[in-house]
Amino acid sequence: MTTLTLEEARGVLQAQPFSMMLGTVLTRFDESGITLELDVNAQLLQQHGYVHGGVLCYLADNAITFAGGLTLGPDVLTSGVALTYLRPAQGERLIARARTQGSTSRTAATQVEIHVQNAEGEYLCAVGSGTVTARTR
Amino acid sequence: MTTLTLEEARGVLQAQPFSMMLGTVLTRFDESGITLELDVNAQLLQQHGYVHGGVLCYLADNAITFAGGLTLGPDVLTSGVALTYLRPAQGERLIARARTQGSTSRTAATQVEIHVQNAEGEYLCAVGSGTVTARTR
Amino acid sequence: MTTLTLEEARGVLQAQPFSMMLGTVLTRFDESGITLELDVNAQLLQQHGYVHGGVLCYLADNAITFAGGLTLGPDVLTSGVALTYLRPAQGERLIARARTQGSTSRTAATQVEIHVQNAEGEYLCAVGSGTVTARTR
Amino acid sequence: MTTLTLEEARGVLQAQPFSMMLGTVLTRFDESGITLELDVNAQLLQQHGYVHGGVLCYLADNAITFAGGLTLGPDVLTSGVALTYLRPAQGERLIARARTQGSTSRTAATQVEIHVQNAEGEYLCAVGSGTVTARTR
Repeated sequence: MTTLTLEEARGVLQAQPFSMMLGTVLTRFDESGITLELDVNAQLLQQHGYVHGGVLCYLADNAITFAGGLTLGPDVLTSGVALTYLRPAQGERLIARARTQGSTSRTAATQVEIHVQNAEGEYLCAVGSGTVTARTR
Repeated sequence: MTTLTLEEARGVLQAQPFSMMLGTVLTRFDESGITLELDVNAQLLQQHGYVHGGVLCYLADNAITFAGGLTLGPDVLTSGVALTYLRPAQGERLIARARTQGSTSRTAATQVEIHVQNAEGEYLCAVGSGTVTARTR
Repeated sequence: MTTLTLEEARGVLQAQPFSMMLGTVLTRFDESGITLELDVNAQLLQQHGYVHGGVLCYLADNAITFAGGLTLGPDVLTSGVALTYLRPAQGERLIARARTQGSTSRTAATQVEIHVQNAEGEYLCAVGSGTVTARTR
Repeated sequence: MTTLTLEEARGVLQAQPFSMMLGTVLTRFDESGITLELDVNAQLLQQHGYVHGGVLCYLADNAITFAGGLTLGPDVLTSGVALTYLRPAQGERLIARARTQGSTSRTAATQVEIHVQNAEGEYLCAVGSGTVTARTR
């Protein structure tokens, strides 16, 4: 298994047009897990002024995939993702931290926590999990 | 419970800046379920040229919420969503069809199927489920 | 792919000591899906007199696996299961109906509904989903 | 919120006929999480000689509920559970460790890891998550 460096993993993120449109950045990619961050702007909201649940889903999906890639190597597929919403997300920045909870040589079971950063600090808005598999060739 | 009309439900979607940025349209909202559609463009892709999984997650989350709202009335919260990816999504349009699988007066368990439309027809790329709850006041 | 007959599928169930201890029976295994049934007795309950959630989980897991096996052939592994509880289960018999929602040649995304049968009829107590994969050799 | 002691929590488990039939014991219930353990015997197996997935599901469901109860107080309902199987379970004892990953005053998002203990030590066979809600009165 080849492990990517933080710079290489950032290169993967930057090759995702959707992530670049949203402005996602990778701020950590090491043995303790991975962190994706995203500045909130008016285009990411839903009808009540909170961050759209779909933005949180996107971030969870992406964080899970990077966490699985950290464990299994860069050639992975995410086979499933699940997210539980705990609180509406309202603030300046989203921070998604993911890590592998358990793995075999071909499958990583990962988990993710999404926090919202605002003037008062951080609060947890959603938690999730996902399964990432190594591509067989 | 007040049930929205298709026009009113479209108003809800149009009040979501994130959905408007992506170009999502609501094409069905009746007793058989709801359908959201989204034209694929280059900004929605990931590094291999497929639609980003996070776009599918967004669409699943939103479809599930509309399906729950159809069952429980407009004042709902989505408490969780799960998505299983079956095939990479490559094509011109995404079509997400969701319906309520079972419900109580306060909770709707919903499911969603996401198809990709291309020159040859449609294929299923992801299936999911979600739980929607009526807001208590 | 070899498809099992109902009799052969019953043979698989009967080879499961845990299912035999609980008394599970397979009452349908055809193109429309599969049905597992289980008589409720005092040993299956939790502390409030309802069927233990773990019994419903067991039934969901097993129904999902049979549904996946119907689609993919007998040599399958269940890779994940999720269940949402809608109502407490109290009655004489549990009926779990499962079918494949979508599949590739190697993966089946399945869903399950669990009803409780009592003197008044049937009611839905839980819905779920699961992923079943064909074993590669 | 009233927090149960380990002894009181054991009383809850002992009031579950299904858990008593299977032989589940609660070995930890403190601020770091909860642990349920179960000796494997021939009645808990499936047709290939491994522990039945439904037994793991039962254990996950129950561990999640105790973890949620630790966070929210004893009067809780489990609204959903999800489990990912990583390896076949074969050994002498199952050990399920669960804790709350994040919570509000009414909802706890929990996670669980199930290990198998055999002559060589322990290995992880399944990971999962679940949502527990406080009952409103």
